[in-house]
Amino acid sequence: MPVFMIDVLPEDAPAASIESSVHRVDGQTPTLDVRDLGAARGDGVFETLGVVGGRPQALDAHLARLANSASLLDLPVPNDAQWRHAITVAAASLPADRQGGLKVVLTRGAEGGSRPTGWIVATPADGDFAERETGISVVTLDRGYSSDVAQRAPWLLAGAKTLSYAVNMAALREARRRGADDVIFLTSDGFVMEAPTSTVILRLGDRIVTPRTDIGILPGTSQLSVFEFAADQGLRTEEALVPASDLTRADALWLVSSVRLAVPVTSVDGADVPVDLELTRAMNAALLARRN
Amino acid sequence: MPVFMIDVLPEDAPAASIESSVHRVDGQTPTLDVRDLGAARGDGVFETLGVVGGRPQALDAHLARLANSASLLDLPVPNDAQWRHAITVAAASLPADRQGGLKVVLTRGAEGGSRPTGWIVATPADGDFAERETGISVVTLDRGYSSDVAQRAPWLLAGAKTLSYAVNMAALREARRRGADDVIFLTSDGFVMEAPTSTVILRLGDRIVTPRTDIGILPGTSQLSVFEFAADQGLRTEEALVPASDLTRADALWLVSSVRLAVPVTSVDGADVPVDLELTRAMNAALLARRN
Repeated sequence: MPVFMIDVLPEDAPAASIESSVHRVDGQTPTLDVRDLGAARGDGVFETLGVVGGRPQALDAHLARLANSASLLDLPVPNDAQWRHAITVAAASLPADRQGGLKVVLTRGAEGGSRPTGWIVATPADGDFAERETGISVVTLDRGYSSDVAQRAPWLLAGAKTLSYAVNMAALREARRRGADDVIFLTSDGFVMEAPTSTVILRLGDRIVTPRTDIGILPGTSQLSVFEFAADQGLRTEEALVPASDLTRADALWLVSSVRLAVPVTSVDGADVPVDLELTRAMNAALLARRN
Repeated sequence: MPVFMIDVLPEDAPAASIESSVHRVDGQTPTLDVRDLGAARGDGVFETLGVVGGRPQALDAHLARLANSASLLDLPVPNDAQWRHAITVAAASLPADRQGGLKVVLTRGAEGGSRPTGWIVATPADGDFAERETGISVVTLDRGYSSDVAQRAPWLLAGAKTLSYAVNMAALREARRRGADDVIFLTSDGFVMEAPTSTVILRLGDRIVTPRTDIGILPGTSQLSVFEFAADQGLRTEEALVPASDLTRADALWLVSSVRLAVPVTSVDGADVPVDLELTRAMNAALLARRN
């Protein structure tokens, strides 16, 4: 599992300094100071990219979201060319005949320091993603925030992809306690948000719907690709305020993310949801075919 | 700034294995794997202890809270004797003639692994804590959660001291943007919670009041000591549901934490708050005198 440490460069650094700023390290050697604010405070941002054929998928969308997360946390603007280079190098380190993923991290760096810390962990997929066919069961959990939280309280960082994911991990443990595979978060006022590590997409008749991001959720990079695919298929796509009741009246429901891609949801809180396997397969074929 | 890495032992490990499980390392050498879930997911818990005369303060209270946080995150039960030993060793590494602090961290360890990661960072105080005399200005910020969140949604980890502190750090940046020194979080239904890194205490007449922890906040270890001191002074102490309006009608207001101790609040959202300097000095004298 290759790890790449990155000497984070300012936005305006000369292009010549980029190549030497990315260092592949032996994955077993510790490379992070425990006082790094990423480790001490969960104070940083990240992206997870899918890798197919040794190439990163949806690179532009992930770089745009990384920059947006950094801005929401008042981190220095990432050097686009540096991260593009580092991500491309890390993706190329994975076996070209298998799918894989990259975790790309930017932290605030050492306490009192002025320089962020960056790294990328490259991981080959260990399975065949059977859940893309068999589907998953989900439970809904209250995220505790109302749907106007992003407007009302930007300091809560709703919509930023931060390293502070303890709640997301706790929600997944709660799902397993309830005998389910994954979680769909709801706002405290009853609207569908997102999953701890993926985006929710519903089919309602001929409409492909995903929750509006202004309720305080992440813009989905894979969801964006799914919407492009759906539009090509002549389906209407829509960002909407989605009441929780739509989950069980949906004609199909998916969680989509960069590595697992589109996974059909077979039940919500124990209630069966129809699976559109044909559309799911077409979605995943389109997602796997992405070049960027 | 000494760093101690800890080979985390199970709760029932033999006492003989404890001494060799704590390793002082050169503070400049990276000692953490970037794949550690503490760094990758903010998935761990911590405590910050004050150190006076080379001895940790309120050790029992901090160990109890660390164990409670670990339980809320489904982490293995900390080995009390091991952490007691490690904290004592780390505290003794600090200059006995200065105040200082320890950051004690327990993470879920490497992804897929079964063993938590532990470390302690020991830091000598770099100032004279002038704010204990001069006080600080605070702004109130909505924490986004209603006062019943801990009962309603335990997976949100309200009341656990986790490494996922990005929101706490963002709130402090928002306070500085507003020209203030610190933050008091309010529930979305208008009750006083806590500060990003300290506990709120008010004096209302002859009552010393702190917000009830069942609204989803941390039990304050220093607040506990302040209440013991206040009871000795013949003051009534009370855990209460505190409406935000009490902040500006208080006869005195403090933020209390383990290293900075009791700091008087001089203004809330720009409105002056009376300072009880005599009581503040007596509180801090009592806090500094703690042995445990």
